[in-house]
Amino acid sequence: MKVFNFSAGPAVLPREVLERASAEMLDWHGSGMSVMEMSHRGKEFMSIFAKTEADLRTLLAIPADYAVLFLQGGAIAENALIPMNLLGGKKVADYINTGEWSKKSIKEAKKYCQVNVAASAEDQSFTYVPARDTWKLTPDAAYVHICSNETIGGVEYNWTPDTGSVPLVTDASSHILSRPLDVTGYGVIYAGAQKNAGPAGVTLVIVRKDLLDRALPITPSAFHWKEQAENESMLNTPPTYSIYVAGLVFEWLLARGGLAAMESRNVAKAKLLYDYLDTTEFYRNPVRKQDRSRMNVPFKLRDETLDAAFLKGAEARGMLQLKGHRSVGGMRASIYNAMPLDGVQALVDYMQEFARKNG
Amino acid sequence: MKVFNFSAGPAVLPREVLERASAEMLDWHGSGMSVMEMSHRGKEFMSIFAKTEADLRTLLAIPADYAVLFLQGGAIAENALIPMNLLGGKKVADYINTGEWSKKSIKEAKKYCQVNVAASAEDQSFTYVPARDTWKLTPDAAYVHICSNETIGGVEYNWTPDTGSVPLVTDASSHILSRPLDVTGYGVIYAGAQKNAGPAGVTLVIVRKDLLDRALPITPSAFHWKEQAENESMLNTPPTYSIYVAGLVFEWLLARGGLAAMESRNVAKAKLLYDYLDTTEFYRNPVRKQDRSRMNVPFKLRDETLDAAFLKGAEARGMLQLKGHRSVGGMRASIYNAMPLDGVQALVDYMQEFARKNG
Repeated sequence: MKVFNFSAGPAVLPREVLERASAEMLDWHGSGMSVMEMSHRGKEFMSIFAKTEADLRTLLAIPADYAVLFLQGGAIAENALIPMNLLGGKKVADYINTGEWSKKSIKEAKKYCQVNVAASAEDQSFTYVPARDTWKLTPDAAYVHICSNETIGGVEYNWTPDTGSVPLVTDASSHILSRPLDVTGYGVIYAGAQKNAGPAGVTLVIVRKDLLDRALPITPSAFHWKEQAENESMLNTPPTYSIYVAGLVFEWLLARGGLAAMESRNVAKAKLLYDYLDTTEFYRNPVRKQDRSRMNVPFKLRDETLDAAFLKGAEARGMLQLKGHRSVGGMRASIYNAMPLDGVQALVDYMQEFARKNG
Repeated sequence: MKVFNFSAGPAVLPREVLERASAEMLDWHGSGMSVMEMSHRGKEFMSIFAKTEADLRTLLAIPADYAVLFLQGGAIAENALIPMNLLGGKKVADYINTGEWSKKSIKEAKKYCQVNVAASAEDQSFTYVPARDTWKLTPDAAYVHICSNETIGGVEYNWTPDTGSVPLVTDASSHILSRPLDVTGYGVIYAGAQKNAGPAGVTLVIVRKDLLDRALPITPSAFHWKEQAENESMLNTPPTYSIYVAGLVFEWLLARGGLAAMESRNVAKAKLLYDYLDTTEFYRNPVRKQDRSRMNVPFKLRDETLDAAFLKGAEARGMLQLKGHRSVGGMRASIYNAMPLDGVQALVDYMQEFARKNG
């Protein structure tokens, strides 16, 4: 059965990428080896690695004064590694709280520094992004941290905050590569790959090079950005196969026109689903319109006792992993780059049918 | 061309494992999803994860009072995470120095504690394992750390040191699963998977549960053994695909008779190569016989100006990645579980031929 996979991550990958990974599994380009079997320092993997980084730089237009690191541990590891790598001699970091992922970042950062929550959307159940002019920033903060797409709450920044000379750091895990991004507006962009960039197990860290000298002495070498930058992410054995698959995804994105083209498709997909949600009382998405995520669309049934029946019917139709995050319940449709418009149309069709039968 | 891949890691994997990974890449067991596309909390991946852990427990006869964690960052990350997780209120940790990997562990641990090098083989260029009765242990050390197989130097413990009530910690990255192991002799066994256990990107940590309450407050949650044990390694998104492939390797090992059967094969392979090395002056391996690694066999040509020709001839015959580690030069044949006896025979045949022609 053809399926549409709405998982929030690890998530759907382009079929062409999986086909190529399958075909190359036993023998990459006549080398006689699987990519999994290659020394990370051998010429074969080094060529894969170099192309992967170059393609990512092309996709995001990453300037030369930014290092690109391929690390491990995902965003939850970076929640600790951000302060470790950026505090330098400073004591305070500013955080903007827009939901569950912001809260995780804040909680972890408190192990290492004083956290100033400069703005929070908690007053309205995390259904919006606080406007820049409401942020109460610390003048001499080590950095300002945002989560530019909240995977659970479905809230997305569609703008780049100006934080002056204080570096802006974003957890972009669940919307990186879904739209063009002005890298120069950020000091650090980090993302677990397992949404739009590839399989779980590799973390992208894009960091302005002048920020590489601020690590605390307790920073583990494997996660020390400067040491990793100096070693081209090979201070430890990198997650080679995950990097290879991410590279196949980057090629796929470039072949389809890059991020501007992906953005148009993503806008169309999100519009289809939100437009339907706004015409019905049967389902609801609580997020303020201008702050709605194009990638993660949480919605609840008016009558939550129908949740199980909704999910069962969806699964029977090949629409998988629509269950909302256990912390909030309800449903969530993650519609990453690799989700075709057809998949969103199928979901809307099913939602209409289900509402008609149960409304 | 059929190749034999002697890489020290990432390293050769069983062909049957790669064939299955390739076949299941687009649709795992009729789910319509690649394993890469599965939510780590979905029923499909949870079943893969549970079987993987259960099979590892069977292979190594891991008792119930040990937690099994699947983490990220490899042994180099654990070099920092070992002291972070084990120091508790103590200040000193004992380390045995048997070579390059021990030295890396010692250097990193010094960020977090006072390191006592209780024994060192540096006096004889790291060609042996110091006998237990020469170790000058600290009575109240937080732990004793060894590297039970030095991947670069080719030195292996073929015994389990008794450290009394002080927990013994071993970096077993490059020989885990190559032989039965008495887990109960250790407080912690850790290993990057990319030699005998699977692809790079997943780290096995086997830890006695009573040691889980000793973490420093600065330990990042993603690498905090207790928090990860309580969350079944899913406090952050685990490296799902690497875990799946490791699980295929574990199945392969069980189907071939488990670790006792692997040990017999590994003994035969190592004997074939070392026996030849001991009959010739053309090549040499400097390690004391009883301490020689069954997994990593470094050797040097008497005439190092022939190194490039040796490697070129090997590659032409499909024998790949024989170049020694850049820190020591020479050659290294890593002959992990997935290397067949045929591969070692082919190498010895070639070494004999090369010696004859250039001797």
